[in-house]
Amino acid sequence: MTADFDLDTAVEPTGRPDCYAATVTDRWSVGPAPNGGYLLAIAVRALLASSAHPDPLTVTAHYYRPPVPGPVTVEVERVRAGRSVGHLAARLRQDGDEVVRVLAATGCLSGLAGPTHVVGAPPELPPPAVCVRATSGPLPGGLSVPLMERLDVRFPPGEPGWAHGEPGGRAEVAAWLGFRDGREPDTFACLLAVDALPPAVFELGVRGWVPTLELTVHLRALPAPGLLRVAVRSCFLIDGTVEEDAEVWDATGALVAQSRQLARVRSA
Amino acid sequence: MTADFDLDTAVEPTGRPDCYAATVTDRWSVGPAPNGGYLLAIAVRALLASSAHPDPLTVTAHYYRPPVPGPVTVEVERVRAGRSVGHLAARLRQDGDEVVRVLAATGCLSGLAGPTHVVGAPPELPPPAVCVRATSGPLPGGLSVPLMERLDVRFPPGEPGWAHGEPGGRAEVAAWLGFRDGREPDTFACLLAVDALPPAVFELGVRGWVPTLELTVHLRALPAPGLLRVAVRSCFLIDGTVEEDAEVWDATGALVAQSRQLARVRSA
Repeated sequence: MTADFDLDTAVEPTGRPDCYAATVTDRWSVGPAPNGGYLLAIAVRALLASSAHPDPLTVTAHYYRPPVPGPVTVEVERVRAGRSVGHLAARLRQDGDEVVRVLAATGCLSGLAGPTHVVGAPPELPPPAVCVRATSGPLPGGLSVPLMERLDVRFPPGEPGWAHGEPGGRAEVAAWLGFRDGREPDTFACLLAVDALPPAVFELGVRGWVPTLELTVHLRALPAPGLLRVAVRSCFLIDGTVEEDAEVWDATGALVAQSRQLARVRSA
Repeated sequence: MTADFDLDTAVEPTGRPDCYAATVTDRWSVGPAPNGGYLLAIAVRALLASSAHPDPLTVTAHYYRPPVPGPVTVEVERVRAGRSVGHLAARLRQDGDEVVRVLAATGCLSGLAGPTHVVGAPPELPPPAVCVRATSGPLPGGLSVPLMERLDVRFPPGEPGWAHGEPGGRAEVAAWLGFRDGREPDTFACLLAVDALPPAVFELGVRGWVPTLELTVHLRALPAPGLLRVAVRSCFLIDGTVEEDAEVWDATGALVAQSRQLARVRSA
């Protein structure tokens, strides 16, 4: 059986070179809008289908407007192909209108070689069995989260504070993350994971939709099987604009992805 | 008198719509390669010349190969222009070969409105008069840094450790930053500032060139006059690939830019 996430991010050749067709479903949405990480996963599937290298190393998405669930096309541009790194771009279009642009560098994550020096560790979380599974119930401001019907996101008991009526005052959240159907993580799952937790600024009392303007994800290693741990933090909410940094750690305690996005807060 | 940095990042219309000519000089280089932030400043000057909005909000550059000092063209693509945000892309070409691609969102930094909540502070540095000005003398591995003949970069006495033969063991550096000719900071200066300090991983004993694959800069406010403070840190050197985060703070203590880049380390 193909996992939901693979079905819902699948791309098909259209017959035109480097142009792919996909269907954005309503199963990975926040409110009415498909999740930005989900859209990025679709775009990167198309990119990799045209890439000489197997893995995304760094991808940046600019979100122009949210598509509605339905058919989209992804036009891939092969910019350069080097021995160890390939450079590509992609345009996600709906009804002819460009909705997401992606710049990517691809390579082979399992073939990277060089020194390693890591400062940092996975977020400290109680065991998954003790944590509380997030539901599709409404976010502050009223948006429901269909995404959480497919993801297995588990917060420590009592967290995040806003879900219990008491925003914690620090824009930091962390959780276990997997798929409810048991699909194991890969780089596509990491693209979703970095954008899947509710905005960290909800812990500051912010409500409503926090649309992403730009999202960059660095893929740092292939994740091992098992639940991921995701830590998200915002340090600089300035005049309604905020960066959000995410780290994704795998079951072996390896950092597998890092992201930063720039988003707009509508109210506080 | 026009400041060196403005002369050396100037763009001129070519007569073709949204296509600009510029000259990459050898005055902002690290070794033989023009600094990535310098190239980004040229590209963003061209972008803004075609933008309905005055400021860059977020820009991502993918570096395909280092250009040599000499003429380049910047072709700008206007992707979308909204009321508060514009989306553009740019291709920096030399001899017809694309060397840098940029994705950008533009807006009006002085017109942003919404809640503010900042965690963090400028790096603690001794007063500039007590600090030691960086020279163009060689980096570990032997590269000279012509960039430092034009920038006024001042490190605390004894820092960074590698410059005194003792890498500090933590991939963190911070310094005052201005222009030697007294040019005041603006968003273009911030694009240079985020990539101007020697790589933080030199404090781990890394030597040689650390080429940038991707650089994203979030411009968060217009800087006030006076020296900037720049703090740079790397947490995850994994198999020779490293992220480097920079924060740029202005003389009033406001965060004005944040960046993250992904770079490759050649040796350790």
